[in-house]
Amino acid sequence: FRRVLFRSFQNLNEERFIEYLTKQFPSPSPIVGIGDDCAVIPTERGPTEQGMAWLVTTDALVEGVHFLKDQIAATDLGYKTVAVNVSDITAMGGEPKYAFLSIALPREVNSTWIHNLIQGVKAACEKWNILLLGGDTVGSKRDIFLNLTLMGCAITERIKYRHQAQVGDVICVSGYLGDSGGGLKALQEKIRKTEDVEYLLRAHFHPEPDPKQGAWLAAYNALHAMMDISDGLDCDLRRLIKSSHKGAIIETSQLPISVPLTLVSLENKWDSLELVLTGGEDYCLLLSVSADDFESVQNSFQNTFKSPLFNIGHITDQTDQLIYNKHGEVIQMRYTNFDHF
Amino acid sequence: FRRVLFRSFQNLNEERFIEYLTKQFPSPSPIVGIGDDCAVIPTERGPTEQGMAWLVTTDALVEGVHFLKDQIAATDLGYKTVAVNVSDITAMGGEPKYAFLSIALPREVNSTWIHNLIQGVKAACEKWNILLLGGDTVGSKRDIFLNLTLMGCAITERIKYRHQAQVGDVICVSGYLGDSGGGLKALQEKIRKTEDVEYLLRAHFHPEPDPKQGAWLAAYNALHAMMDISDGLDCDLRRLIKSSHKGAIIETSQLPISVPLTLVSLENKWDSLELVLTGGEDYCLLLSVSADDFESVQNSFQNTFKSPLFNIGHITDQTDQLIYNKHGEVIQMRYTNFDHF
Repeated sequence: FRRVLFRSFQNLNEERFIEYLTKQFPSPSPIVGIGDDCAVIPTERGPTEQGMAWLVTTDALVEGVHFLKDQIAATDLGYKTVAVNVSDITAMGGEPKYAFLSIALPREVNSTWIHNLIQGVKAACEKWNILLLGGDTVGSKRDIFLNLTLMGCAITERIKYRHQAQVGDVICVSGYLGDSGGGLKALQEKIRKTEDVEYLLRAHFHPEPDPKQGAWLAAYNALHAMMDISDGLDCDLRRLIKSSHKGAIIETSQLPISVPLTLVSLENKWDSLELVLTGGEDYCLLLSVSADDFESVQNSFQNTFKSPLFNIGHITDQTDQLIYNKHGEVIQMRYTNFDHF
Repeated sequence: FRRVLFRSFQNLNEERFIEYLTKQFPSPSPIVGIGDDCAVIPTERGPTEQGMAWLVTTDALVEGVHFLKDQIAATDLGYKTVAVNVSDITAMGGEPKYAFLSIALPREVNSTWIHNLIQGVKAACEKWNILLLGGDTVGSKRDIFLNLTLMGCAITERIKYRHQAQVGDVICVSGYLGDSGGGLKALQEKIRKTEDVEYLLRAHFHPEPDPKQGAWLAAYNALHAMMDISDGLDCDLRRLIKSSHKGAIIETSQLPISVPLTLVSLENKWDSLELVLTGGEDYCLLLSVSADDFESVQNSFQNTFKSPLFNIGHITDQTDQLIYNKHGEVIQMRYTNFDHF
């Protein structure tokens, strides 16, 4: 049910496919195309105005790959279709504005389900002040397919990319990790719905990216790189360091794990660290912040949003090397492989 | 293989579903949302500048509904995914600019096919000077889904909608009708590929919307309404008159039918008029032009593009009434029903 990348198309895997697309479709500066959370299209402006840019992102959700129809309420699916895109706009420091929704539905889907789907989309649009301005409604032979394109705007010079992490930067995240992955696992294993399990399911069905946090963080020059965590910290941090030509050390004892995930993991003998690193769909922010300024950014963030930034490691000069420590000692991670790079 | 609307979702049909969406997602002026070929987002401007607007459109193509994988070359499919969106931008008088492509593919699709698909997308982007700036590449369980969102730009005051047709206007089209529908029929009936059949197949696989024509026409105040013909003249003209609260009379003897369609229809006992009115995927322009100015627009268009505008009828005050004449006498059309409105 999680967002599954297609890891292999014969010899093509997703990362290679994106590299291939980037070569096929180069974008002339100052436009930024394929490769970050959003495309960036600077708007023209007078010499005294602050430069604004459009951010554009698009995400597809496919039945049987990203969701199972009988495991997700139609309202949650509609909501999530918007939320995953809001997360991308947030990760560049932008404000979501306009959405375009394509829906492909087989004949047997009933109108109540469709109505609920649309109400979920609507609730998300209202929550984030997004206008849905268009789309396409088509038939499908068998599977449900949803695609949302979201336009947002940002102050051009504040836009944060994933390629500008610097050696010595503190790596931090804006929320607990692994909760959504835990929710998915609870669904898959059909675990009894305790209050803690409900919390994990909610994290899975109802991601809560906060564009205000993204825009607030983007105002700091000390913030060098930002992206959202959609495919798991391990996968996404590798993307960040690869794109920055740097490395990273993560101190696993500092990874933020929620109490419910800890408890449900203990009870069901789950490896919570695996969920934290590879569960995916966290839709919180991954940041690389100048070490000198980190504490002040962290305090100010806490005061503003009543929510912490978790310091989980730092950037190194060891290009493409992601090292996990436990209390300062290097540890091997059996499940964080890198074969799709 | 043609673009099939889903005509019924239980009680919802596409037109009603779009009406429902329009109510759920109202858009504040001057933004134009759901209901025309594109959404319109005016950009801010200084008091002396010419107002520009973004046009945005999105179209999904689903395997088994819009195409059969073994009947279309991957390059044609990629090209067509772009072309159908270019047609929407053209129909509002805009210039296509930026594309975002989502692809959902099942595992068994091989990398040559994918490469060819992308080359088709690339050829179309190069043809129309479009930058592909992003997208999403995901897995699919069974069917192939493609979705393209296209942004274009236009001079705000020149943008043409479908709701401003006026009584007495000449109705005209910018190309032959029914060729694409004939191509689809030839595929379905597995007709031997003569030169004429190849022409029809090419019309089906390779629509040629021309944004230069759309932008040129948009400069005329005498042009009151414009849209593209994607679902057949009958269906799309009904949309135009409904949206303009007008009626129309079409003189069937003036409908432009190509020589190849005429010949192949004769040979195979096809009803060419049915294909012309309901075949769909023509991707040419449907226009409503002030009668006084029509001749000069027509001559000037012919001189500029070496291609005719075909006068096929006129707008009436009989709201929602589409009447077909033959040499001035009303005729009944058994196949142009209206039950999806």
